[in-house]
Amino acid sequence: MDRENKLPMLPGKAVKNGKGTAKEAKSTGITVKKSDDMPEWYTQVCLKAELADYSPIKGCMIIRPYGYSIWQKIQEFFDSRIQKMGVRNAYFPLFIPESFFKKEAEHAEGFAPEVAWVERKSESEDRYALRPTSETIIYDAYSRWIRSWRDLPLRLNQWCNIIRWEVKDVKLFIRSREFLWQEGHCVYETREECDKETFQILDEYEKVSHELLAVPVIKGKKTEHEKFAGAMFTTTIESLMPDGKALQMGTSHTLSQGFAKGFDIKFLGKDEKYHAPWQNSWGISTRMVGAIVLMHGDDKGLVLPPMVAPIHVVIVPIFFDKSKENVMKEARAVFEKLSKNFSVKLDDRDEYSAGWKFNEWELKGVPIRLEMGPRDIEAKQAVLVRRDTGAKETVALSMLESKISSILADMQKALFEKAAKMISDRTVPAKSMDELTKAIESRNWAIAPFCGEAECETALKEETGGITARCIPFGNEKSTGACVHCGKQGKFNVYFAKAY
Amino acid sequence: MDRENKLPMLPGKAVKNGKGTAKEAKSTGITVKKSDDMPEWYTQVCLKAELADYSPIKGCMIIRPYGYSIWQKIQEFFDSRIQKMGVRNAYFPLFIPESFFKKEAEHAEGFAPEVAWVERKSESEDRYALRPTSETIIYDAYSRWIRSWRDLPLRLNQWCNIIRWEVKDVKLFIRSREFLWQEGHCVYETREECDKETFQILDEYEKVSHELLAVPVIKGKKTEHEKFAGAMFTTTIESLMPDGKALQMGTSHTLSQGFAKGFDIKFLGKDEKYHAPWQNSWGISTRMVGAIVLMHGDDKGLVLPPMVAPIHVVIVPIFFDKSKENVMKEARAVFEKLSKNFSVKLDDRDEYSAGWKFNEWELKGVPIRLEMGPRDIEAKQAVLVRRDTGAKETVALSMLESKISSILADMQKALFEKAAKMISDRTVPAKSMDELTKAIESRNWAIAPFCGEAECETALKEETGGITARCIPFGNEKSTGACVHCGKQGKFNVYFAKAY
Repeated sequence: MDRENKLPMLPGKAVKNGKGTAKEAKSTGITVKKSDDMPEWYTQVCLKAELADYSPIKGCMIIRPYGYSIWQKIQEFFDSRIQKMGVRNAYFPLFIPESFFKKEAEHAEGFAPEVAWVERKSESEDRYALRPTSETIIYDAYSRWIRSWRDLPLRLNQWCNIIRWEVKDVKLFIRSREFLWQEGHCVYETREECDKETFQILDEYEKVSHELLAVPVIKGKKTEHEKFAGAMFTTTIESLMPDGKALQMGTSHTLSQGFAKGFDIKFLGKDEKYHAPWQNSWGISTRMVGAIVLMHGDDKGLVLPPMVAPIHVVIVPIFFDKSKENVMKEARAVFEKLSKNFSVKLDDRDEYSAGWKFNEWELKGVPIRLEMGPRDIEAKQAVLVRRDTGAKETVALSMLESKISSILADMQKALFEKAAKMISDRTVPAKSMDELTKAIESRNWAIAPFCGEAECETALKEETGGITARCIPFGNEKSTGACVHCGKQGKFNVYFAKAY
Repeated sequence: MDRENKLPMLPGKAVKNGKGTAKEAKSTGITVKKSDDMPEWYTQVCLKAELADYSPIKGCMIIRPYGYSIWQKIQEFFDSRIQKMGVRNAYFPLFIPESFFKKEAEHAEGFAPEVAWVERKSESEDRYALRPTSETIIYDAYSRWIRSWRDLPLRLNQWCNIIRWEVKDVKLFIRSREFLWQEGHCVYETREECDKETFQILDEYEKVSHELLAVPVIKGKKTEHEKFAGAMFTTTIESLMPDGKALQMGTSHTLSQGFAKGFDIKFLGKDEKYHAPWQNSWGISTRMVGAIVLMHGDDKGLVLPPMVAPIHVVIVPIFFDKSKENVMKEARAVFEKLSKNFSVKLDDRDEYSAGWKFNEWELKGVPIRLEMGPRDIEAKQAVLVRRDTGAKETVALSMLESKISSILADMQKALFEKAAKMISDRTVPAKSMDELTKAIESRNWAIAPFCGEAECETALKEETGGITARCIPFGNEKSTGACVHCGKQGKFNVYFAKAY
């Protein structure tokens, strides 16, 4: 029984934003299937759900309010967790003096191609880069602020914009010349404390991804070849998107002492001697919003996990002219009541039909649609429609709150479990290059023994047209076989995939 | 009775951050009087209270966690107010194509000297500016998003960094090449709605300044000469700092139709015809943190209004070796209890003396210091010391919460009233240029009749070495005399001052 088919359509009113006629309005829906052309599908969802827009600046995006709200939810969750851990927020300049890039050789080399520079007004002026990451500008300050063991640990974070100029074509949220992120930069007396936090933050990132985004991730270590430029080691959370491409979701690094030495950071220990401290850095970005779209969306558009949904419930009143007043009165009463516990939108626009509204809110991925018509009101009930499954349920008005709570909780869990099953089904062991490439061509990622040599990794990537080592998985590091590429004794297991 | 004099000093331990000996530690306090050299005093307070630091980039500052917390309090307060009004947050690119600056002539001319540009990798690339404000990049998007009356009002805000390159020497928080702000950009069908919000936002800015910062402001309109480049009119909140210089605290503009025309923003009205919409823009920045320091600080350092204080109460336990365990136990219990309602810091560091701690927390402007020694614990009491007045009070432990609440409320009110009295005492009417310049030389601002002509204003500024029209005060616009400068009939009253 499809309630939608019985709706009174208001002729000539199914016009979105006044951009066209009722006929054109259909094209505001997603016009390709996710399984047929995921890149095109993805772009359409981001644009049409009004998460983001292109900008006139090559490689840059605009984050629209609906997309920005999701980012704010990620910010609020993660920021409150790190504040409780004792990390404090600060803000460092966007600009980095050219000379700073020379102080940590690997770091400089790694970021050189991505850096944008500010035009100098005269030759005598210093040349400044726009931050592609802030280790150098922050550690220059740390060298002035850190004198003794009393100043440690020093644990700062900043939320800011980041510029990486190499990007030519923006992939909304996933890759752009400018993006938003947080970057944490902590300094410890001992390596033990430092590493402990590097891993603790990775656990926090997993929590964000699992509990908010409902995007399952594998935690692991990057290979030498893939680690952050200037890190001793990089830990990462990696996920697999439905098109079989891997997405790096966040990284947490223990840095080499190269930064401390390059920037002359040292502290007077309790032993009255000077020591180089241990440092870590870690970041997650607006890319996470893209992961939600890729993982959960369907052919109707966005599907938002309730924990990140800007709107939990949209109320769509359904009425003929004579029933309008009564239906709207009840809809407003339900809106007021539900707003105490949920984020609720009452779609009271006159200029759109109920059917048009259904499509729009499905496109925008709102977890629950609440329909109320004249007969529902008589029967003191409403109809709840769940976005991910499309399941409909008639619920007594007195039971709405508890029912909505349980649907939201179920949906959050179901999205995670569905994604976890997809990833598990698509995790394929490979013992040979033939198995590896076949697995990856079939939209899987492969787990295989690997020797760990940078040269072997480069060769593998080149020969396969871009397959990379995503991570050495924690808890499953130990290799039992020969390197999938060179045949030497494998050092550890590696997840291989093509990546975003 | 000065409790501090009776404290056991721990010899050789009064060392801050391991940077020096006990003797040197004294110099971590402020070394000049506010009334003797306010610029030097201001810089010392910002640096030594760890609100901010200089950076190696000319004209740029680092906002340290203590300063950033204050900015976050301003953000939280204002952001929640505008969200309730229906404004939504978004994020637009840092970069602005060069061609955009040509689309609104006055705007382009006004900002030209301040703009920093990105180095082009090749001549064929577009040239991009770093946003000195975002009208142009935002209105380009609006021209795509706005089609009909259904899309209005469109009300967005962004929190971001802003670059104005003309600044050579940073004045921490007050003037720097990069700063943080919010900028709201709203679009309406009618001028009436648009203007209404322009004024409503100014009221909100006054609220932030009065209720959080305890900094009294005058609301008014800018003269033609001083209005925002591209505005039809600019409203402003202006305050007077204790050195007699005026500080612009926030502005809210109704824009000219120049932007709508330059960016081709139009909407199909209910009358089926196309119209240019009405737009406003408005902003407050990290400058507000500087205003708090300037207005309320004293010779001991920062004095923070409780509403923006990152820490409300600092607990300093006072003990001799044998009493330590017992005092710390009670101090921790008080800390736990108070933390439920206040932001509390327990200073349990062993390496600093109580006296040293007193100085540090005074320097940092914490509203209340709570002292607890062995005798206090026996008597089930604690001593509260209020930062602005230095008043001490012995309070029964059972009464602590209510007493702290009332001290915080009193202090917030007293700081505002003291500042309001200062400003009122220093607001001097002037009928002649002689009276005007004398008033301003004596650290006042002057209110005087003014003809409103841009040429007269420029001449006045040049002749006086920088006296400017701050605003035409609302509620006191009407002039009763001849223009203070040219002698023609005054059009309105103006506040004149030298400004930051």
